[in-house]
Amino acid sequence: MHSLDANFTIVAPAQEIAAALDQRIDRKTKPLGALGQLETVARKIGLIQQTLTPQLANPQMLIFAGDHGAARAGVSAYPQDVTWQMVENFLAGGAGINVFARANGLGLSVIDAGVAHDFGADRAGLIDLKIAPGTANYLEEPAMTAAQCAQAIEQGARAVLGLAAAGCNVVGFGEMGIGNTAAASLITHCLTGMPLAECVGRGTGLDDAGLARKQALLAQALQRYRATGGDNDAFRVLAEFGGFEIATMVGAMLAAAEARMVLLIDGFIVGAAALVAVHLAPALLDYCIFCHRSAEPGHAAQLQAMNAEPLLDLGLRLGEGTGAALAFPLVRAAVAFLNEMASFESAGVSDKA
Amino acid sequence: MHSLDANFTIVAPAQEIAAALDQRIDRKTKPLGALGQLETVARKIGLIQQTLTPQLANPQMLIFAGDHGAARAGVSAYPQDVTWQMVENFLAGGAGINVFARANGLGLSVIDAGVAHDFGADRAGLIDLKIAPGTANYLEEPAMTAAQCAQAIEQGARAVLGLAAAGCNVVGFGEMGIGNTAAASLITHCLTGMPLAECVGRGTGLDDAGLARKQALLAQALQRYRATGGDNDAFRVLAEFGGFEIATMVGAMLAAAEARMVLLIDGFIVGAAALVAVHLAPALLDYCIFCHRSAEPGHAAQLQAMNAEPLLDLGLRLGEGTGAALAFPLVRAAVAFLNEMASFESAGVSDKA
Repeated sequence: MHSLDANFTIVAPAQEIAAALDQRIDRKTKPLGALGQLETVARKIGLIQQTLTPQLANPQMLIFAGDHGAARAGVSAYPQDVTWQMVENFLAGGAGINVFARANGLGLSVIDAGVAHDFGADRAGLIDLKIAPGTANYLEEPAMTAAQCAQAIEQGARAVLGLAAAGCNVVGFGEMGIGNTAAASLITHCLTGMPLAECVGRGTGLDDAGLARKQALLAQALQRYRATGGDNDAFRVLAEFGGFEIATMVGAMLAAAEARMVLLIDGFIVGAAALVAVHLAPALLDYCIFCHRSAEPGHAAQLQAMNAEPLLDLGLRLGEGTGAALAFPLVRAAVAFLNEMASFESAGVSDKA
Repeated sequence: MHSLDANFTIVAPAQEIAAALDQRIDRKTKPLGALGQLETVARKIGLIQQTLTPQLANPQMLIFAGDHGAARAGVSAYPQDVTWQMVENFLAGGAGINVFARANGLGLSVIDAGVAHDFGADRAGLIDLKIAPGTANYLEEPAMTAAQCAQAIEQGARAVLGLAAAGCNVVGFGEMGIGNTAAASLITHCLTGMPLAECVGRGTGLDDAGLARKQALLAQALQRYRATGGDNDAFRVLAEFGGFEIATMVGAMLAAAEARMVLLIDGFIVGAAALVAVHLAPALLDYCIFCHRSAEPGHAAQLQAMNAEPLLDLGLRLGEGTGAALAFPLVRAAVAFLNEMASFESAGVSDKA
């Protein structure tokens, strides 16, 4: 059993205001429940902020990037260099997440949690939290040491404190790391108990032979872990399979929930970080909005384990936080209806006969 | 067989540009197909506008309101006065559709196609296209005459020509009319062949007894129509069951497709209008983006008949065009990625190994 160096105090929102929130939602000029999942989101944010008039302030996307030792073994359709190349694409504003964050009014920062590349000093938009230039290869040894894992969590937490100080109260999580669907598959298997085969998918686009190879390699990694006495402790699983971007994200999520922010959870890899964070602090779930259902098969196991019903189901499998950025207008709309819609009384509309 | 007074020339978009659109989408810095339905939307809008760089200009919501003679017979959970009261709510900016249109940058106009109420002269935001103060009761006679139906279609078309002249190329459709899920159920049954019982739902919130009563009344209306020789001709079905807001919307859709606009199709009632319009001009389907899957059960039959895969599935059943307004950011994001995302070449990112 491992523990965190950093302490997080994450408490479930008080429920006293829930009845008043329900009443406010139900008296809006609409049939009862007619705004479906938007009503659930409005209620959740009202609870997080403990108010009938929540506000979303200075929304930000954080994109966590890292490399994986196992990537060179052939668990991805793309070469490892794509990680740093895509970070450069983020910094130049040309990636999908840049387009969607711009379109939907979200700020964006990139965190180098452990990319195997030197980006040079003082790059605008890039936060250097590099633990090491890529994790070790979990086919041979743990991806990171317990100390590295704790450091990543602590650094992720500190990055979020910076956002909170800037008045941000809603943060979207995204990631980049060639090989990170493989790490997410292993984490998902260990923390949900779903068979490994059902947690492994094509990632960025493996063909049948590539998928079979990925399945075999991950089974081998799991076998090695179990042979060393590896259990399903969330912290140990995280350190064992990585990556640094996932561990740093776990810390950021814990700090964001502690700061009572709204957490926008993207797809499969961000979902793996959320799964770890929820195991470390179950009340974190009350701060999460699950933004989309990924086409990656292991995502279903995560959603089931966290009892989550995502907002979008568009067949997305790009990662980067694109699902979170795309769902953000729905979150904003949920808050807007709670604040701006008239009630039957205020609008002089007759209620149900 | 009835025919339209107005002639519409709606042609399917030329397909010559399709390969270039696919190429442009596939070379973006993302795995092939990783943006899922957004790629379908981007391709569709590129085809509609016949360009690799489509633009969405001056987006507008049109909300069509009308009353139904059958409403007084008990097909709705709400009193008929709610139609005009909600129109007032729209004009005051307090309804769900106002909130979502504002949040997502859509203009909004309300069209009185046949509300049983005098709104007074020169109301800002209200377009007076009233055919009559409510349709006749289809339990006893056709909801409207063929002449009224043709007039509604023609008026709807003219309203859209006004938008086109103002530079609008994307229009969202919404509606208000107590009793109009009943009309939509009858239209859906006739034009899809699905059993009537599967096309009838709780609308604004009928209980079990109310639903049974609605089912019985609609079966009775259908029986009366069949006894008078009523067939499944789209125009005749529309005139028989109404309402004026649906018929006016059909004309608006036909004109919008003729003007090569992007049509944002909301849920069950707007879907019924789309079903009629597609029967009158099959190529209209190429201009439609289906925005959400309604919780109203008959919507599934419509979507199947039009081979449509909606963007959102949030359990919405408010109408007003709220699903269209809520999905608009996804449509905007689809166009944005096509225009703004870097390619593998332009960003210097390595392609799949």
